[in-house]
Amino acid sequence: MKDSLLSHIESPEDLRKLTLEQLPLLAQELRDFVINIVATKEGHLGASLGVVELTIALHYIFNTPEDLLVWDVGHQAYPHKILTGRKDVFHTNRQYDGISGFPKRSESIYDTFGVGHSSTSISAVLGMAIASRLQENLQKQHIAVIGDASIASGMAFEGLNHAGVTNTNMLVILNDNAIGIDPSVGALKQYLTKAKVGFKPRTDNIIEALNFDYFGPVDGHDLPKLCETLEQLKSINGPKLLHIITTKGKGLKQAEENQVTYHAPGKFDARTGDLIPKSNKKQPPKFQDVFGYTLVDLARKNKKIVGITPAMPTGSSLKYMMEEMPDRAIDVGIAEQHAVTLAAGMATQGLIPFCTIYSTFLQRAYDQVIHDVALQNLPVVFCVDRAGLVGADGATHHGVFDIAYLNCIPNILIAAPGDEIELRNLLYTASLGLPHPIAIRYPRGRGEIIEWRKPMKKITVGKAKQLTTGTSIAILSTGTIRRNVTNAIQQISTPTEVAHYHFCFIKPLDQPLLDHIFSTYKTIITVEDGVIKGGFGSSILDMANQSTYSPDITSLGISDEFIHHGTIEELHQYCGIATEGIAKTIRGKLHYTS
Amino acid sequence: MKDSLLSHIESPEDLRKLTLEQLPLLAQELRDFVINIVATKEGHLGASLGVVELTIALHYIFNTPEDLLVWDVGHQAYPHKILTGRKDVFHTNRQYDGISGFPKRSESIYDTFGVGHSSTSISAVLGMAIASRLQENLQKQHIAVIGDASIASGMAFEGLNHAGVTNTNMLVILNDNAIGIDPSVGALKQYLTKAKVGFKPRTDNIIEALNFDYFGPVDGHDLPKLCETLEQLKSINGPKLLHIITTKGKGLKQAEENQVTYHAPGKFDARTGDLIPKSNKKQPPKFQDVFGYTLVDLARKNKKIVGITPAMPTGSSLKYMMEEMPDRAIDVGIAEQHAVTLAAGMATQGLIPFCTIYSTFLQRAYDQVIHDVALQNLPVVFCVDRAGLVGADGATHHGVFDIAYLNCIPNILIAAPGDEIELRNLLYTASLGLPHPIAIRYPRGRGEIIEWRKPMKKITVGKAKQLTTGTSIAILSTGTIRRNVTNAIQQISTPTEVAHYHFCFIKPLDQPLLDHIFSTYKTIITVEDGVIKGGFGSSILDMANQSTYSPDITSLGISDEFIHHGTIEELHQYCGIATEGIAKTIRGKLHYTS
Repeated sequence: MKDSLLSHIESPEDLRKLTLEQLPLLAQELRDFVINIVATKEGHLGASLGVVELTIALHYIFNTPEDLLVWDVGHQAYPHKILTGRKDVFHTNRQYDGISGFPKRSESIYDTFGVGHSSTSISAVLGMAIASRLQENLQKQHIAVIGDASIASGMAFEGLNHAGVTNTNMLVILNDNAIGIDPSVGALKQYLTKAKVGFKPRTDNIIEALNFDYFGPVDGHDLPKLCETLEQLKSINGPKLLHIITTKGKGLKQAEENQVTYHAPGKFDARTGDLIPKSNKKQPPKFQDVFGYTLVDLARKNKKIVGITPAMPTGSSLKYMMEEMPDRAIDVGIAEQHAVTLAAGMATQGLIPFCTIYSTFLQRAYDQVIHDVALQNLPVVFCVDRAGLVGADGATHHGVFDIAYLNCIPNILIAAPGDEIELRNLLYTASLGLPHPIAIRYPRGRGEIIEWRKPMKKITVGKAKQLTTGTSIAILSTGTIRRNVTNAIQQISTPTEVAHYHFCFIKPLDQPLLDHIFSTYKTIITVEDGVIKGGFGSSILDMANQSTYSPDITSLGISDEFIHHGTIEELHQYCGIATEGIAKTIRGKLHYTS
Repeated sequence: MKDSLLSHIESPEDLRKLTLEQLPLLAQELRDFVINIVATKEGHLGASLGVVELTIALHYIFNTPEDLLVWDVGHQAYPHKILTGRKDVFHTNRQYDGISGFPKRSESIYDTFGVGHSSTSISAVLGMAIASRLQENLQKQHIAVIGDASIASGMAFEGLNHAGVTNTNMLVILNDNAIGIDPSVGALKQYLTKAKVGFKPRTDNIIEALNFDYFGPVDGHDLPKLCETLEQLKSINGPKLLHIITTKGKGLKQAEENQVTYHAPGKFDARTGDLIPKSNKKQPPKFQDVFGYTLVDLARKNKKIVGITPAMPTGSSLKYMMEEMPDRAIDVGIAEQHAVTLAAGMATQGLIPFCTIYSTFLQRAYDQVIHDVALQNLPVVFCVDRAGLVGADGATHHGVFDIAYLNCIPNILIAAPGDEIELRNLLYTASLGLPHPIAIRYPRGRGEIIEWRKPMKKITVGKAKQLTTGTSIAILSTGTIRRNVTNAIQQISTPTEVAHYHFCFIKPLDQPLLDHIFSTYKTIITVEDGVIKGGFGSSILDMANQSTYSPDITSLGISDEFIHHGTIEELHQYCGIATEGIAKTIRGKLHYTS
């Protein structure tokens, strides 16, 4: 490392001092650097390995940060981070107080636009390009790098459709590796595949139909060719698209061959690429697997059930149903809006669609939830995965707003199971056909019940339950943060003073039980893994206000700020909803009430 | 009318008894019927006149309601309503307790999917078509009718991109009239225009690139040709698109010539088409015009200001800036997601983007508000028009969720001016450059201040003000519903008992003033033109809970249900936020406190 080319590169300025001939060696060093660190520190691997050459070429040819470069999604931005001054802190990637796993404006001037969710780059770069034109910065270049999975999202189309009628100095680089996290789907993907395997760009290809000049396809691992092409494109005005072909995981055999696994492989052997075997100890299931396997169990018995995921077959575990019943379980690509209204259309015909979307991505389909599902009161089952703080992915990915943004929508039920068995029973209950849409939120990660595949039981909508009895204080929690509450109660010296109620349903709330609680306890603590404003605690407060009692209510959850990255446990601690924080709040209240 | 063909048509079954030769006469009668009623009852005119022939042809050739037909947006569905059993109630269109201005499932079996917002039809119909295939209804036809403005929205692209890889029996009819509410924009529109004026469909036109069979273009006013084409398409399997060319406003000269005005012209002379002149009396301005004119005033002085609208130049009054500074005021088409992230991109380069979006359509860009604007704390100014209950457009269009769904997002400021002058001053304040994004919400319709163009004053962020003093009760209102509160206080017998506070800022709230209010009044009423759950009242309740006081708080606003159509006044009455309802609540509280 010490005498490597990379060791001398603190910024793209240093990179530009190299000769064109030195660049392939730098690519090798950069690739090794990424592999070595991600092997032990974990993170997103495959996407970054695929754009090593592109990253070098872009910073070599363009005058970053004057020229503005936006990486769509940002999974692929590790080489960019390493070349733009963050080599020495790259080992802190995705860790608490370390650098972010995604480009982030506050982190570097080279990160011109924060990303995380897909398909924003074209709009953002067009905004920058229009600004440059208005400011008469006519030499400035504006570059969006976007993958073939992301460009198929509606938002990207909106950006292209607008850009095509502007005369802005804008370059879209389509990084076509035929895969997002899972393999790409859709008609556009098929079209691009044809373009790759020999169809020459024609006058009216789909990109040119949108008024973009089309260039390529070019081998995205051919550094001299990439540099030459980018240099040429600098002098071509107006919106243009360069189609490059890359291999996700390039340069690490296993990553090339198992692209889904090596998207974010966890720890692996940097030399061989082999994954570090996980302990053989039997572990409790991931919540996504409780969803995925239970849905298969249910769908086998009920023909009305269909499954929908926007581009997350593996992450959501819908893949199990897709494998067994490919007609009835559908990956629609990065198309959350479409996914939700598709589900609504299916529901009008008597099907029971289970639409699984990460909490943070359901934000993309908010209008469709209101306008197409809730207003028509169609019984779509939203399986809201990655709800709550998600950990290392950070601020762009935390699923902390869903309770608040769903709570204000009429007709929709909101449930947050306390454990795997309750999730399974909720899915079962929803499969029986509810008279309303329902959102079932559950977290990233594992539960704690190894024997979770119990016979399923119907759950009564709106019913909460008492977990422990207590004399002084009532704690009301919703969802799996229940575990922290349970542990907190066990930590305090007088656990019998604390009653714990679990609210599986956030909407509707259990009114009779709340009446009892309000009439019994003067001190109430609510706990949720989501924003307090408009969330579960707010709803409890509303109910208390409507009652004749005036309990003292303290709401724990995410306060009114964006939470960054770290382990889930670290972030729970930061927010005061880890076991210790909850125990501390309980102690404070007990002290006050005694 | 009595001996007309139309008089005998109670359902499409009756229509199908006519001969092909009779259809043009029916078209004439249907067109006259629409014109005669809309002339006096008001509503959406142009879109419906443009699809008279298409509507007849669809119900004549297809076996509705067995075959499933979805009208995108639904402005054009009046002929459909009239032919499907709602002729005799059509004069109640858009009125309280009358039929809806849009297709609505609860109204008719022929309304297979409720619409209002654009670009949902392809996804909904694809969901239906997949359901039919799973249910082995292989003869069923599934038809989406979508305009050229709506098909350019990202959501429609997502639907097409998915549909293209399904083998479903699905027909998309592209009703191309080159206009939405305002003229269509974007690269796709230019492409379609080329297709119309002579370019023949080619093997790889943009539609075929997405795996759809492309048919057309066909004259959408040529009934025999339409019927013949639709009949042929019935026997072609797989996804297909028929491109028809129509004239918005067809058959009424003024409506054809002034398509923007006659989209929803208000009252007009049914015979001549002339608009009924409005009173010459000087009226207070529409809030949209306060926005539109003020933005021009500000932009003349500040080069950093840009304006963005997703397809609403006329409705938002951004058109004034577009006319004067076309480079700096942009209609991006029906592309709310893109509009917001475009604004974010511009803001990174030091511009101050004023992004005007109707409250109900901002739902379409919810993720972009969170992920691209608020998380990066970019000073985008959201001018949230049509906030609150909007009247005759009904449930799909009420802007009642925005306070709740924005309230839970960190960093963003939320303001609701009490009148035109305060709106103007807020826009001025935002133009000076705020350290945060801000959403300024204002209603549909007119204010009450004729001389509103006063010199502009900076408003202190987070400051509320006392409008009237009072001894017993405090009323806290936000936004223009303030007028109803003021009137209500004047109606009660002891107005001096009631203090009225106007909160221009919902976020941040005026904490010092609230401390004073909580310490002074035991009874508080909050009033807002939005959902109570998660809204202004909820925020006040949170603040009270965090204080050391326990006032009795009653929140007035929209309760947890979807509100249908009627005049704004009627809907305010229904929700208890009209003057009378507020007065009644005040009286009840005064009685209780005295």
